[in-house]
Amino acid sequence: MPKRIVIIGAHAAGVDAASAARKTDRTAEITLITEEKHAGYSRCGLPFVLAGHIPSFQNLIVFPPSFYQMMKLNLKTETKVTKINAGNKTVETVDKTGKTEALPYDSLILATGANSFTPPIKGKEKQGIHSLRTLEDGEKIEEAIKNGAKTAVVMGAGLIGLEVAVALQERGLKVTVVELLPQILPMMLDADMASMIQEMLQIKGIDILTGKGVEEFLGTEKVTGIMAGGQQINADLFVSAFGVRANTQLAVDAGVALGETKTIKTNARMETNVKDIYAIGDCAESTHIVTQKPAVQQLGTVAVRHGKVAGINAAGGYALFTGVLGSAVTRLYDTEAGVTGLTEAAAQRARIDVATGTITSKTKADYYPGARPIKVKLVVEKESQRIIGAQIIGGEEVTQRINAISFAIQKQMTVRELAKADTAYAPPVCETWEPLVLAAEMVLMKLK
Amino acid sequence: MPKRIVIIGAHAAGVDAASAARKTDRTAEITLITEEKHAGYSRCGLPFVLAGHIPSFQNLIVFPPSFYQMMKLNLKTETKVTKINAGNKTVETVDKTGKTEALPYDSLILATGANSFTPPIKGKEKQGIHSLRTLEDGEKIEEAIKNGAKTAVVMGAGLIGLEVAVALQERGLKVTVVELLPQILPMMLDADMASMIQEMLQIKGIDILTGKGVEEFLGTEKVTGIMAGGQQINADLFVSAFGVRANTQLAVDAGVALGETKTIKTNARMETNVKDIYAIGDCAESTHIVTQKPAVQQLGTVAVRHGKVAGINAAGGYALFTGVLGSAVTRLYDTEAGVTGLTEAAAQRARIDVATGTITSKTKADYYPGARPIKVKLVVEKESQRIIGAQIIGGEEVTQRINAISFAIQKQMTVRELAKADTAYAPPVCETWEPLVLAAEMVLMKLK
Repeated sequence: MPKRIVIIGAHAAGVDAASAARKTDRTAEITLITEEKHAGYSRCGLPFVLAGHIPSFQNLIVFPPSFYQMMKLNLKTETKVTKINAGNKTVETVDKTGKTEALPYDSLILATGANSFTPPIKGKEKQGIHSLRTLEDGEKIEEAIKNGAKTAVVMGAGLIGLEVAVALQERGLKVTVVELLPQILPMMLDADMASMIQEMLQIKGIDILTGKGVEEFLGTEKVTGIMAGGQQINADLFVSAFGVRANTQLAVDAGVALGETKTIKTNARMETNVKDIYAIGDCAESTHIVTQKPAVQQLGTVAVRHGKVAGINAAGGYALFTGVLGSAVTRLYDTEAGVTGLTEAAAQRARIDVATGTITSKTKADYYPGARPIKVKLVVEKESQRIIGAQIIGGEEVTQRINAISFAIQKQMTVRELAKADTAYAPPVCETWEPLVLAAEMVLMKLK
Repeated sequence: MPKRIVIIGAHAAGVDAASAARKTDRTAEITLITEEKHAGYSRCGLPFVLAGHIPSFQNLIVFPPSFYQMMKLNLKTETKVTKINAGNKTVETVDKTGKTEALPYDSLILATGANSFTPPIKGKEKQGIHSLRTLEDGEKIEEAIKNGAKTAVVMGAGLIGLEVAVALQERGLKVTVVELLPQILPMMLDADMASMIQEMLQIKGIDILTGKGVEEFLGTEKVTGIMAGGQQINADLFVSAFGVRANTQLAVDAGVALGETKTIKTNARMETNVKDIYAIGDCAESTHIVTQKPAVQQLGTVAVRHGKVAGINAAGGYALFTGVLGSAVTRLYDTEAGVTGLTEAAAQRARIDVATGTITSKTKADYYPGARPIKVKLVVEKESQRIIGAQIIGGEEVTQRINAISFAIQKQMTVRELAKADTAYAPPVCETWEPLVLAAEMVLMKLK
């Protein structure tokens, strides 16, 4: 009898799991279930459609129906899983017509994702508070813009919040960003690096209010303003980008244990505590490569890597997940910002004694036209002199510099080794002394 | 008495050595000697001035006179060192007025560089064969273009040859490149990767003749054509880009030993076999990080790294050079090409049993406008599964991908570790599955 693999969730994690399972077992019956109308689209692309860089939300559907046919995957959209019976190994579903079904599984993969989260703020039940998690969310914001919204408030200055703020500003709206913490991108960058992005955004015309919590949503039925830090801000459009919360209820009800990050606890094979149930993507916990502690990194790259490992294992193969570093990058206007490993603040929270070094250099030879500034901050564990984190802000090649440092961290490179590293150079693409190497030099000077 | 440090050569290697020596010893008397009129300019930038990307050759002077004043460096231009007396520790010089001098040294650093080399081809004594090694060389080619040259032949399809060919074509000349070997970029890329660049250059209108040696320079006093592979090619401008030869005669005459690469043998402190004499840059040998054998990499990055180590040691400090990988990159039109470590061909020559993997992907999310193709070839040592080389061709972020693999090689990352690596992603800057990771997957499939 063919192996029955059921996957709850059909985006980055779920689809990559299905794909890996298919490659591992050509005969397995693989079913993907999603509550959403559209499966297999790139959530990370949503802000860039809003910004107008990408013509349509439909362009984000990276796995079209033909993919599921070719891979012989059974896709059930607009179908909700109401219960997991770990005892008799079935999942109960209900589709949009109300039809219920009990699907048996040999392996179950939970890719239930996360949902946008709005804290319990007075008036949050009012209409008109948007978020940007699904394709439909994007279409609703698009509609609001097309209906003439001229001003917007974005609540939360994390990655998504800022990407949305930039998108709205690029579409001509006057945008205010409100952030409870004293800096923008608090999970991604140290305050000294974040201030550079904040200044850039302000120069572009985005109002940024840090250290201000949203206290109330104003308006009768529909939100027309917020109170933040005692200040009233009215707008036509409100976007909640406070963050996301993992969808774990279904798992918890089935006896699946959560870890200390309140996401589903997994081992290196992405197995949960319940036999034959795996968890992947935004709902699943990983181990951090530097701290070796549980960590949750709700990133597309982690989702696909999780998915691949779980898919192979669920189909009877063998694969291990090697942990996360939280490598992430974005582009806001023409400035790129990236991070890998621990920020200085995160290292301090983890009680790791660090030295840091920050330098500013250029992305091309100084004499080559179009050379742009780039700023690198390295975080180094003092005793071992190992690199444990980096933050980079600049106009070019930030992503691959982040990847280079990610590799360095994963292979326990010391800051001295980085200061001596063999790097490539040509005037149109970089400086003779690579900025990463200069940042390593800076740390070494401090360590002397 | 202050330490007397004499440096022969005043470009990348020499100036970085002087700078490092000064930072190590605030009181040393540091003298830089060069035969050239201009010191401290970027040779790597020469083709890009010719191309018209950079306004003037003068822009390439990255260390202006004020630098030497600020660093208290004694710079002697248009001065030739005629002899090194290792016995009484002096160098004999003659300046452009014919004045001779004997300069005593405590430490001597040889940064004598390399010169363009034209093989013993019939008629090579004729006028009008240009090369592009010095600022004056560049000015002469510029003059030829301004005097109405319409056609050019570039002899040699290495990095410099192709950069010059592109520059001349961008300036409107009809360019033919002649290469003895059956492929372009023979020292940098495997034939399968090089063919991609060759096609691109041909589409841009450059004629490329591979597998054809230059047999004769034609013309009476001045070269007006060449015979190559039995074919006569006439042109207005001829550029010799056969390669460079290290300038070692001065060193050899002083008893300094050469290594098996015919460049000056050095140890990890960049010391030669003669006490207190160091050698750096294009005239000096290094150890290859992968093969652990003597290697010569005449690159700007190696020169400055050599210089720094020798400068510190010559001034009484302690620094070690950790070897070369030959990481190099160029941009031809809007295509970047890079290499680090061993090519497949170089690995075979070194009798290393390898597996390779080549993939083509995109530089941005498939749906993001402007995504460009990128091709990655990984070379992996079969038994250890360690990455020992990579070649990358694409439109964006090739340099930092090369650096990422360079770090991976230096830290002995296996191809399996790369296939599982944590990488950063955002739609405008890369794909979810990093091309480097996909190439690693491809190698793993072959290793199964």
